[in-house]
Amino acid sequence: MQATLSELAEITGARLEGDGSTIISGVSTLSDAQQGDIAFLTNRRYRLQLQHTHASAVILHDDFVADCHVVNRLVTDNPYLAYALIASYLASEQTQFSAGIHPNAIIAASAYISTAARIEANVVIGENVVIDDGVFIGAGSVIGKDCTLGTDTRLCANVTLYDDISTGKRCLFQSGSVIGGDGFGFASDNGRWVKIPQTGGVRIGNDVEIGVNTAVDRGAINDTIIEDGVKLDNLIQVAHNVHIGANTAIAGSTAIAGSTSIGSGCTIGGCSGIIGHLEIADNVHISAMTIVTKSISSPGQYTGNMPAMPHCDWSKNMVRLRQLDDIARRLKQLENGKT
Amino acid sequence: MQATLSELAEITGARLEGDGSTIISGVSTLSDAQQGDIAFLTNRRYRLQLQHTHASAVILHDDFVADCHVVNRLVTDNPYLAYALIASYLASEQTQFSAGIHPNAIIAASAYISTAARIEANVVIGENVVIDDGVFIGAGSVIGKDCTLGTDTRLCANVTLYDDISTGKRCLFQSGSVIGGDGFGFASDNGRWVKIPQTGGVRIGNDVEIGVNTAVDRGAINDTIIEDGVKLDNLIQVAHNVHIGANTAIAGSTAIAGSTSIGSGCTIGGCSGIIGHLEIADNVHISAMTIVTKSISSPGQYTGNMPAMPHCDWSKNMVRLRQLDDIARRLKQLENGKT
Amino acid sequence: MQATLSELAEITGARLEGDGSTIISGVSTLSDAQQGDIAFLTNRRYRLQLQHTHASAVILHDDFVADCHVVNRLVTDNPYLAYALIASYLASEQTQFSAGIHPNAIIAASAYISTAARIEANVVIGENVVIDDGVFIGAGSVIGKDCTLGTDTRLCANVTLYDDISTGKRCLFQSGSVIGGDGFGFASDNGRWVKIPQTGGVRIGNDVEIGVNTAVDRGAINDTIIEDGVKLDNLIQVAHNVHIGANTAIAGSTAIAGSTSIGSGCTIGGCSGIIGHLEIADNVHISAMTIVTKSISSPGQYTGNMPAMPHCDWSKNMVRLRQLDDIARRLKQLENGKT
Repeated sequence: MQATLSELAEITGARLEGDGSTIISGVSTLSDAQQGDIAFLTNRRYRLQLQHTHASAVILHDDFVADCHVVNRLVTDNPYLAYALIASYLASEQTQFSAGIHPNAIIAASAYISTAARIEANVVIGENVVIDDGVFIGAGSVIGKDCTLGTDTRLCANVTLYDDISTGKRCLFQSGSVIGGDGFGFASDNGRWVKIPQTGGVRIGNDVEIGVNTAVDRGAINDTIIEDGVKLDNLIQVAHNVHIGANTAIAGSTAIAGSTSIGSGCTIGGCSGIIGHLEIADNVHISAMTIVTKSISSPGQYTGNMPAMPHCDWSKNMVRLRQLDDIARRLKQLENGKT
Repeated sequence: MQATLSELAEITGARLEGDGSTIISGVSTLSDAQQGDIAFLTNRRYRLQLQHTHASAVILHDDFVADCHVVNRLVTDNPYLAYALIASYLASEQTQFSAGIHPNAIIAASAYISTAARIEANVVIGENVVIDDGVFIGAGSVIGKDCTLGTDTRLCANVTLYDDISTGKRCLFQSGSVIGGDGFGFASDNGRWVKIPQTGGVRIGNDVEIGVNTAVDRGAINDTIIEDGVKLDNLIQVAHNVHIGANTAIAGSTAIAGSTSIGSGCTIGGCSGIIGHLEIADNVHISAMTIVTKSISSPGQYTGNMPAMPHCDWSKNMVRLRQLDDIARRLKQLENGKT
Repeated sequence: MQATLSELAEITGARLEGDGSTIISGVSTLSDAQQGDIAFLTNRRYRLQLQHTHASAVILHDDFVADCHVVNRLVTDNPYLAYALIASYLASEQTQFSAGIHPNAIIAASAYISTAARIEANVVIGENVVIDDGVFIGAGSVIGKDCTLGTDTRLCANVTLYDDISTGKRCLFQSGSVIGGDGFGFASDNGRWVKIPQTGGVRIGNDVEIGVNTAVDRGAINDTIIEDGVKLDNLIQVAHNVHIGANTAIAGSTAIAGSTSIGSGCTIGGCSGIIGHLEIADNVHISAMTIVTKSISSPGQYTGNMPAMPHCDWSKNMVRLRQLDDIARRLKQLENGKT
């Protein structure tokens, strides 16, 4: 795929400077760009590269135009967004496919597969499944019964959907993701665990992305809900009956425990954990490796990690951490003695 | 599946109040229950819903009977257990299956498959495998050679068992779980890692549940052992030669390092880690996102996490955490100066 | 496979004591060894077992020879390495295979498969893939187009490689590992996320091991790089454009965020996290469950976790942790008041 700089200006709404007929066939970094590439500046740190890049055009903010020796430019307030839009446009051919069902796919008689969908080898599709136009199902994926996949949804290879999962349009499931596993629910019977059947489903909105080997469990009675525009990175655990609000993005290796509700527009750093039955407000931002143990009602940034120190410093400070209550009491005594 | 309230009283051992011939066909929450549903109260918070529920019957503790406008009741000391038993009973039809081997399954000549087992599409089963009565193997699962799966064990879709894995009866493996991968064992040869062959197996007891994308590694020489009734949630790492005692339950995204032995009746919160070669006693309870670095010989609750704070509070406190040893020394000096 | 003690002395470079013609057919621990086994002492704790073992020979350090009643010995400075080499030699038969392509494998016409490779059932291989001599592809694995797998590389069952992945020689991919998923890259468009196409690949060196359900994402523009001899345990997240230097070993459930570069010869404990865009020097050792939030330029051990305490101790100390800045200020006031 290629485009003229004028076309890319139109796609992004950026201001065109230079020759609009310049042909652009790829996106690259300032340092690696070659003839035919458009490069971008999104981080002030790299501004000096504007003077040496071989890019045919550059996407940048007005503030850096003076630094830029390249005469063909797209000037915009959000160069990162313009880069995303242009890269998507130039890569769009790669995600196109010819429709059809591989002869080695195994599809239940009652399933409906759009003639505009593509089903790869060794896919297994259960009873009453509905596959809409433009859906792509990668090799080795297994889809349980009563699932519905909305238009242009894409499952990469080896994805697993249990029974009764529905997705909206334009969702993307990376390989190894598993939607609809049983929630972790057991009642104790004198120390022995009795399983609670997990009979809810999973409802996924439009434009949701689910990362590699991420797990989203089905609900116990009601459904687990992932709203429109949610982005989940790799190896995330989403327990039963979690509700994730629209456009919330969660980084890798995070876990959300059962029945917790997360607002919209949140970001959650990697390796974090949110315990069960909490309410997290809209626009809450959780730092990496932070555990949230109480509901959060105000937007803002929340943190609870302990950044790495040289091990010997850590050793000394940890001894004191275990004495912290004692330290505080002794300080109080000194203060009292003083006044 | 449906049942009379009398039958459900018998199954649960609960005290029946009201009309024992009431037909129950589903389980629901107090707020969502419809005609024909039985609902349950397990959390005092929801007691007011007892006055408005449309449930045909309610499971509850004697303490709340006075609050309950529904005349049909199962009264019990453990309503959550009664709910589990009833939900299982009503859902039991769903887990029944007709036995048989899908024509697209690939099964080694020397494997024994019970005629009362069901093998789904694209399953691959290795030499000398033994599949007992009532076993269900989901689509795309791969079972290495010399494995034994006990009666009524269930593998969901896309489960992987390496060679030489044995399970007891009634185990449940969620999709993407992998049992028997190589333990992470290497000897250093001047900075280069030399692999140590992992020649042990994995022995799994009865009634074990393994969550989505959870990994249980094989032993280096001896076996990794998971005892009866152990429940592992999603995305858990169980390293080589770990031993997990009966009825221990471990929440999602936790990791147990090599050769650690965990007692029976333990609970381990999500996102936790236990380092290698430790001994954890019976009935130890580890909080979420806690790292255990020493053996624990006494039962009880153990915690080592730092709950989220507003980021600016955290920033100030973290600066001080790095000064903690210094703070403690200065306090000591003040105390000494004083006395 | 079996060998004489003399042969094993030669393989390991250890000093032979006793009868070199002793036949060894297995490796075991001191306590479990039987006739025909060679056992090893790598941990001083177990030295008393030297007096009671039934092993036919023992691998040990010179320091413990006096404690050893077994007359056949391999004496070496690095008994753990000798054990690794001997166990590998004795197990080498198990990893041998007869070449060939299973009739149920589905292989693109343009793929090249060495006649000395083995492709198991239900494997799917895309266009232009190159599979070198000695490669083994386990059942259910899916390999995208334009991948190259170097000599003697082994994929266990149900591994997924996206398009444009290359590996060196002798790599090992455990089941459920996924290489080349999309990096987690989105630009914000007024709160809505716009996907950034991930068009880079993944380049993997020689002798790399990737654990069960571990994810290595493809680069955004340039490639994600895993150098020679890197060992990744299970359930690890390696984000886009990460660079991991040679012979670095990373324990389970750790996550490395995007564009971070880790040096060679590093070890990273389990459940750790390294945030994005950092530079970690060579020979850095990170403790378990430690978050690294800044670049590290000096070799050494770094730690930032909070080991478990009895819950009531933790509760008291955590209250104080949230007062730590206040405590430090009050201490300062006392000091100022005093001087």
